Amino acid sequence: MRKKVRNLLRAAIYQKGALLLLDQTRLPHQERYLRLRRARDVARAIKLLQVRGAPWIGVAAAYALALEAQRLSDDRLRAGLAKAAQVLIKARPTAVNLSWAVNRLMMLVNREDLTPSQLRRAVIAEAKAIEKEEQNRSEAIAVQGAKVVPQNAVVLTICNTGALAAPGLGTALGVIFQAHQAGKNVEVYACETRPLLQGARLTTFELLRAKVPVCLIADSAAATVIERCDLVLVGADRIAANGDTANKVGTRMLAVLAKEAKKPFYVVAPVSTFDLQCRSGAEIVIEERSGDEVRRLGRCQVAPEQVRVFNPAFDVTPAQLITAFITDAGIIKPPFKRNIGRVLFG
Amino acid sequence: MRKKVRNLLRAAIYQKGALLLLDQTRLPHQERYLRLRRARDVARAIKLLQVRGAPWIGVAAAYALALEAQRLSDDRLRAGLAKAAQVLIKARPTAVNLSWAVNRLMMLVNREDLTPSQLRRAVIAEAKAIEKEEQNRSEAIAVQGAKVVPQNAVVLTICNTGALAAPGLGTALGVIFQAHQAGKNVEVYACETRPLLQGARLTTFELLRAKVPVCLIADSAAATVIERCDLVLVGADRIAANGDTANKVGTRMLAVLAKEAKKPFYVVAPVSTFDLQCRSGAEIVIEERSGDEVRRLGRCQVAPEQVRVFNPAFDVTPAQLITAFITDAGIIKPPFKRNIGRVLFG
Repeated sequence: MRKKVRNLLRAAIYQKGALLLLDQTRLPHQERYLRLRRARDVARAIKLLQVRGAPWIGVAAAYALALEAQRLSDDRLRAGLAKAAQVLIKARPTAVNLSWAVNRLMMLVNREDLTPSQLRRAVIAEAKAIEKEEQNRSEAIAVQGAKVVPQNAVVLTICNTGALAAPGLGTALGVIFQAHQAGKNVEVYACETRPLLQGARLTTFELLRAKVPVCLIADSAAATVIERCDLVLVGADRIAANGDTANKVGTRMLAVLAKEAKKPFYVVAPVSTFDLQCRSGAEIVIEERSGDEVRRLGRCQVAPEQVRVFNPAFDVTPAQLITAFITDAGIIKPPFKRNIGRVLFG
Repeated sequence: MRKKVRNLLRAAIYQKGALLLLDQTRLPHQERYLRLRRARDVARAIKLLQVRGAPWIGVAAAYALALEAQRLSDDRLRAGLAKAAQVLIKARPTAVNLSWAVNRLMMLVNREDLTPSQLRRAVIAEAKAIEKEEQNRSEAIAVQGAKVVPQNAVVLTICNTGALAAPGLGTALGVIFQAHQAGKNVEVYACETRPLLQGARLTTFELLRAKVPVCLIADSAAATVIERCDLVLVGADRIAANGDTANKVGTRMLAVLAKEAKKPFYVVAPVSTFDLQCRSGAEIVIEERSGDEVRRLGRCQVAPEQVRVFNPAFDVTPAQLITAFITDAGIIKPPFKRNIGRVLFG
């Protein structure tokens, strides 16, 4: 069942020779698109979080290779794509969608039966296919998610998991948009999501545009707010085979609070976010970012310049704190080790 | 046993006719003292958090009445003091120390046997006595706290509970300073403490000055960091008779995380923070502050101007999440209902 999606922001638009990227670091104040022509520029934009959200990062990386395919001459095509793939994969380590999308395109590059112009066309078509698939996944997730959202629902969420994070409706926020469009009374508490404030800047922006009631809170106020909430919905950057989930730092806090308050805690993600190579959360590399993200806020210095900072961009929520996964392939309940494989492989 | 306290900041200095207040909103960038001459100016400084920390708020309010005692003519003395007391008590509702200190001075004002000049002298002497008592309490707390800090200790804390929060060494941070001075290897993870960043601005500042190893984290990273910590030490703004504790928003989050990680969670506070009139946390009024504290950071606008915000300055940690109270009168363990009364009344 397809639903009409209104007012959707497009985080990236692929054109011949250029990728237009909505610079998310400037939101909500400015809606400005970057015009990128090379994979290394896209890699830089990924590092700087100008494009973010695990599914969009994967799509942006795929288009980065499409840009290279258009740009490179026949004799440099395969080597150039392989080199660009390396640069892209290193841009951010935690979200699996990035390496997943890049590796999928590299399987084409490695096919020796394709002529350079066939390869060029195939890479571009595959990148577009990845975006379309993610968009379809968002829609399927939203439909699955409807099952867990009651008619009157107060939802707690963190970071941004809407159209700015995934093509289409998004993941956790997509479930909320869908419930709202279906006429349910949904209210959202949005954690501001320090240090880079994706909740304060992006989630409030998307919810205000969609006219979904939203209330912004400091992350630490979640311990108070959880009592008023019916459920917690979060996204994911990488999900291990046992269900341990890497997502924005603060997600684990919400999971522990939800358990204490006896509220359901759902992870909402496309199947492309599962990494079955990864047996448990202990194997997930957690990106540590510059301490200045915590010491400063935009141009404002808040902490002493010389203070040491620990700034993990993500944390790992243990599987036992997760009520279920809401995916495009269905809702996955415990025991996760068995059921993740079942749902993913049909 | 008295220990030497080095490098102590003084949040407030009373002089004849003026109260010098270190403007904590400008720290760590500027060490600037305000010179206040009237109670209403002190009330304003309390509202704006230029002076903060439950014990210092109480002391500042006491000195505010001392200023009025000096300033008012004999015929307006009693009425003027009563009016100033009302203004002061309304400045911030949650910390009990404020009303406790004001009510203590009002008991003098209500004594009809005192002449105006006797009353004037008595009010000033009592305000000084309150500061001295709080300072002695800080020292006694630090000595009590030494019992719970092991030789090698990683401590998680929130907000600021040092010399900037309480006369003398402080409360939770005072325990840390004392352990450090006693030669223990103490390391501190300081939660930045959104929205007003007392952890990032004040706690790091005090610990760097005292050369105690400190690492700053976003509040939501506490869920990751708790695993590396040996104990949690926090302050308190009001403690109910059953042990439920109001403190800076985020404290309850740390308590839930500590329970999940099986780490001890201590509340460190002078006996002046207990409010036995208050039977449980449900009776504690939680101050809600302007949404702009979350929407903005200093001069930086971060969230859309029109978004709704829920901004409680405090939260209530249920007594059952608290391992013990560290007070100047001793360490109070469960069952709290019985033991709080026993320790407070000897």
